[in-house]
Amino acid sequence: MAILKKSRNLHTEDNTGFGSNSSNYSGRFFNRDTGGANVRRTGIGLLNRYSWYHTMLGMKRGKFLSLLFLVYISVNLLFAAIYYLIGVEHLAGIERGHDLKELSEVFFFSTQTFTTVGYGRISPTGFLTSAVATFEAFLGLLSFAIATGLFYGRFSRPQAFLKFSEQALVAPHNEGMALMFRMAPFKNNLLSDAEVKLTLAMEVEEDGKKTDKFFTLATQISKINSLALSWTLVHPIDEQSPLLGMTGEDIRNTDLELMIFVKAFDEVYSNTVVARWSYINTEIIWGGRFKLMYHPSEDKSHTILDLSMLNDWTPAELPTSVKSGNTNKLPE
Amino acid sequence: MAILKKSRNLHTEDNTGFGSNSSNYSGRFFNRDTGGANVRRTGIGLLNRYSWYHTMLGMKRGKFLSLLFLVYISVNLLFAAIYYLIGVEHLAGIERGHDLKELSEVFFFSTQTFTTVGYGRISPTGFLTSAVATFEAFLGLLSFAIATGLFYGRFSRPQAFLKFSEQALVAPHNEGMALMFRMAPFKNNLLSDAEVKLTLAMEVEEDGKKTDKFFTLATQISKINSLALSWTLVHPIDEQSPLLGMTGEDIRNTDLELMIFVKAFDEVYSNTVVARWSYINTEIIWGGRFKLMYHPSEDKSHTILDLSMLNDWTPAELPTSVKSGNTNKLPE
Amino acid sequence: MAILKKSRNLHTEDNTGFGSNSSNYSGRFFNRDTGGANVRRTGIGLLNRYSWYHTMLGMKRGKFLSLLFLVYISVNLLFAAIYYLIGVEHLAGIERGHDLKELSEVFFFSTQTFTTVGYGRISPTGFLTSAVATFEAFLGLLSFAIATGLFYGRFSRPQAFLKFSEQALVAPHNEGMALMFRMAPFKNNLLSDAEVKLTLAMEVEEDGKKTDKFFTLATQISKINSLALSWTLVHPIDEQSPLLGMTGEDIRNTDLELMIFVKAFDEVYSNTVVARWSYINTEIIWGGRFKLMYHPSEDKSHTILDLSMLNDWTPAELPTSVKSGNTNKLPE
Amino acid sequence: MAILKKSRNLHTEDNTGFGSNSSNYSGRFFNRDTGGANVRRTGIGLLNRYSWYHTMLGMKRGKFLSLLFLVYISVNLLFAAIYYLIGVEHLAGIERGHDLKELSEVFFFSTQTFTTVGYGRISPTGFLTSAVATFEAFLGLLSFAIATGLFYGRFSRPQAFLKFSEQALVAPHNEGMALMFRMAPFKNNLLSDAEVKLTLAMEVEEDGKKTDKFFTLATQISKINSLALSWTLVHPIDEQSPLLGMTGEDIRNTDLELMIFVKAFDEVYSNTVVARWSYINTEIIWGGRFKLMYHPSEDKSHTILDLSMLNDWTPAELPTSVKSGNTNKLPE
Repeated sequence: MAILKKSRNLHTEDNTGFGSNSSNYSGRFFNRDTGGANVRRTGIGLLNRYSWYHTMLGMKRGKFLSLLFLVYISVNLLFAAIYYLIGVEHLAGIERGHDLKELSEVFFFSTQTFTTVGYGRISPTGFLTSAVATFEAFLGLLSFAIATGLFYGRFSRPQAFLKFSEQALVAPHNEGMALMFRMAPFKNNLLSDAEVKLTLAMEVEEDGKKTDKFFTLATQISKINSLALSWTLVHPIDEQSPLLGMTGEDIRNTDLELMIFVKAFDEVYSNTVVARWSYINTEIIWGGRFKLMYHPSEDKSHTILDLSMLNDWTPAELPTSVKSGNTNKLPE
Repeated sequence: MAILKKSRNLHTEDNTGFGSNSSNYSGRFFNRDTGGANVRRTGIGLLNRYSWYHTMLGMKRGKFLSLLFLVYISVNLLFAAIYYLIGVEHLAGIERGHDLKELSEVFFFSTQTFTTVGYGRISPTGFLTSAVATFEAFLGLLSFAIATGLFYGRFSRPQAFLKFSEQALVAPHNEGMALMFRMAPFKNNLLSDAEVKLTLAMEVEEDGKKTDKFFTLATQISKINSLALSWTLVHPIDEQSPLLGMTGEDIRNTDLELMIFVKAFDEVYSNTVVARWSYINTEIIWGGRFKLMYHPSEDKSHTILDLSMLNDWTPAELPTSVKSGNTNKLPE
Repeated sequence: MAILKKSRNLHTEDNTGFGSNSSNYSGRFFNRDTGGANVRRTGIGLLNRYSWYHTMLGMKRGKFLSLLFLVYISVNLLFAAIYYLIGVEHLAGIERGHDLKELSEVFFFSTQTFTTVGYGRISPTGFLTSAVATFEAFLGLLSFAIATGLFYGRFSRPQAFLKFSEQALVAPHNEGMALMFRMAPFKNNLLSDAEVKLTLAMEVEEDGKKTDKFFTLATQISKINSLALSWTLVHPIDEQSPLLGMTGEDIRNTDLELMIFVKAFDEVYSNTVVARWSYINTEIIWGGRFKLMYHPSEDKSHTILDLSMLNDWTPAELPTSVKSGNTNKLPE
Repeated sequence: MAILKKSRNLHTEDNTGFGSNSSNYSGRFFNRDTGGANVRRTGIGLLNRYSWYHTMLGMKRGKFLSLLFLVYISVNLLFAAIYYLIGVEHLAGIERGHDLKELSEVFFFSTQTFTTVGYGRISPTGFLTSAVATFEAFLGLLSFAIATGLFYGRFSRPQAFLKFSEQALVAPHNEGMALMFRMAPFKNNLLSDAEVKLTLAMEVEEDGKKTDKFFTLATQISKINSLALSWTLVHPIDEQSPLLGMTGEDIRNTDLELMIFVKAFDEVYSNTVVARWSYINTEIIWGGRFKLMYHPSEDKSHTILDLSMLNDWTPAELPTSVKSGNTNKLPE
């Protein structure tokens, strides 16, 4: 339970978008996996609730390709059925035989039409069959037009390609201590003008009532010119910090979440990219220090950034004077 | 009729883009349906008056697909006519018969060329027919190139996917009252850094002459970090507000329009999105309060946002002292 | 000749990008037609001097389509020559005859391969011919991939669709006068947050030497919330203006250019769009007033913007006190 | 070695993104060739370390096209093998013969399917062969969809098209001297609102220990309205400059790097473009002056920008008083 005293008069944030009475909000605010808010929508039709384009862009690659293939097979099965019902005699060149054989011939004629391969061994002759084939070829080309757009949308979608440390650490800092976490770009993109915003959601007791409060946490450096190496964010736990006076045990027992929002400029896409991450109470280590994760190459010609070390830290003794500190001793 | 007194010395907006002498402007300023200004352009050719790309992007899905199909059929009818005029004897493999049969054969040959299916049962032989087919296949591919671009343009077009409440409410607020409306994101997109601008257009009597005036309305919070839940905008009706002193009846009888402009950052598109909405006098309820539209899920693991409740409100008593207030009693 | 007195101590702009010693710069600074600077580059290879993509995007529609068709024909002529040189006997189904007939058959086979129509009446048989056809089909598809990109690039290219009045006017304004011009959006796009920057380039005599100076001209309103109707920009000719004290004759005889740069947000493209325009001395009318170009529709349901009136103005008497004013009478 | 005295109390930059203890960083900070930071990533799988889309966009044109062709050939060889293993007897119309002939026939059938040319001389008959062909045509179309996206991504990628002078010069400037370099746009794009940020990384001796320090260098003009001609950046070596007091020999012997970051707005792409460049100690000339690289055309109708003169400079005498200056004489 947070032992935040009202007398500290800390500035709380009212414009987080989670409502002023946040006891109506439950669970983790942000999902690390989806990078989105932990909200479910009801009272609206399924088709209206989702932007199919956003869904297609967010889908994992394997699932996306499987879906395309599934649509391809389904549409062709449908058209095969239509051609079959019209009559296989209207398909010149088809090999006649038992039903299954004819069906498969019709299906392959359909795929040859949909993809516009059109070998021509089988070709439509009657009006109706020809008309359906005319429509199918049109539909096929539009489908691939849509697929082209989806592919482009997927891979041109600006992404930050940032990895965050799994844990945040409370580390010794100057005379006192600071909350730290770090991030590193893991791909061959080049980010500049990176900017970080930290919001802490914490359940506090006010007048005997528990409510969730939001605080903006200050960091020593919140903007960086270019994000080439790892970047360690440092929030000093000082009088401006709502964390001042809390012990490791306090943090473990308090329902809190540190939400991170990064905005940067990707120089290849020439576009703004964003990344989100969050740490809840069990993901904050009391007393630790990150190991340096980059070093010069042997020939001193370039710098090596070792991404496997992103989560590497060593235990560190925190200053006892502050560690044992409690809110009663705070300057007011 | 607005009973705004000149002595209040309110700041009016001159840069709304609706002209300084807005009595020249008629009807609703913004259409809710199109999200655009209620202006018609004349004195310019039809083709120059429309950006066909903007038109194609704004068109409803069904209409867009029908249009594509219509173009497809029309172009092929045209080419069919050309091939027919050149002579069907230059199409090897064509089934001869009565005119209509031959015409349909020629039409299907055309579609097979335009879509590049090219089964080959029918194929061009003479120079002229071959040349036309050469051009048709080229045109077909370009057409589908354009269609590809249009599809991509349509679904990659950044949209806010925001729903607004049908009515704005004048609700009790602190000691006085406030004009409120709310919005909610209804799709699986994620908006951050949302910002709202409110402009009130109101017909006022100045020196016995009616003119339209524009006012920027202040809101308690006009920026929000992330738009995950519903967002209620609150414009307090205080001394800075041009609505101060008006009664429900005044509002009903005054020609006014509250225009809303929202700008936010879509984290999937990594682009700015905008939304517009407006409320005219008959869409403002005197004395009402919105019902909360989100609540924790039963297992407390996430929050549920019920979009069917967006327009739900309960009547609310407004403070009589202000309700009965009139401009004569205003501090000046 | 500008009779600007140094004692006026006007602020000149050094960061226009036209160099501090602009006597090295000649002719009109900006071309109205291209919207670009009037500069030619030398000392660099032709291919490096042009961005082919920028060129393709800026090309007129007819020229662009003709170019595509020309490339299509040329490439197929080339491939036809290759197939012919390899030998027409490797093309099964070809109609033999005199050279020209065979050549045209080969050409049509090439187009059927390039567009992937592939009727199959003619088909490659030998290894070499098949290999070339394999490459041609690949090239064909890539070409249409590039064409698709170009089409999309062309019509998704953010454009402001703004028309400017052909002339700028010096009009009576309040007690004095002002330089005015206007612009209007002529298509069904919706621009918001429009912003204008005016730069005046003027040849002035300083210490008996003529040099070009740049001045930023202030306007009454330089930002506008939404650009739905026409927008008249007003630069008051007051003590901050470098035009103060000039007569109509002065303007006609001075080498000057008023450069306009507009930036706005297109709500359909969700992108920033820009427009440029400029007025030189002969395009500035001394003593005129624009006619209002919009009016309510008959049924008062919407506003009509008449774009044919964009250049309509009536002569207007300018205040003589200022008109006859000369620099000697300026307050200093 | 830099003889920077601590007493000068210059402001160093901590947010360059190169770490506070930059002795861990080696070699040139920025590569001129790649425009990227000189960092190598380890500890992460090869596939995760690269964004294939960024890689494809950054690749040289020839390499990119070769790669596409290689993929085309490889995929078709693979499918040819599959068809061959299933049995050539399932391909109607194939010319039988020795293995190599049959293999090549199968390969060409594969390419005709992949590109959807589908002449039809050879066509699949059995179920398995037809099924594979169905999949291959699908894969072919998706591949060209991806290629379309890559082409568009490549040529629509916003680029600054700026050339920088190979050397920076220390030139006489007013009473003292200044560090100068210049840039010029070399293509038919139009850049406006260009902005430059200069960061100097320099090894300095502090308390007998060598560390790298970062300084932001001020320039006379750091923003420019439109980048139509060449732009010479001027950093005056005055008391705010960390270079004050250094001699040409000092610069040659000090491990330093001047990093340049340019951001501008491309009016054709309607997008922000960036450019990077850097000068190390051996690329800074002590005592030189750039030659003017633009002049009016003979008919005075436009300006000619001669890009071959970008690196042209003449030696220039630097003021001795400052040249011989050393840090002991600095005003403190």
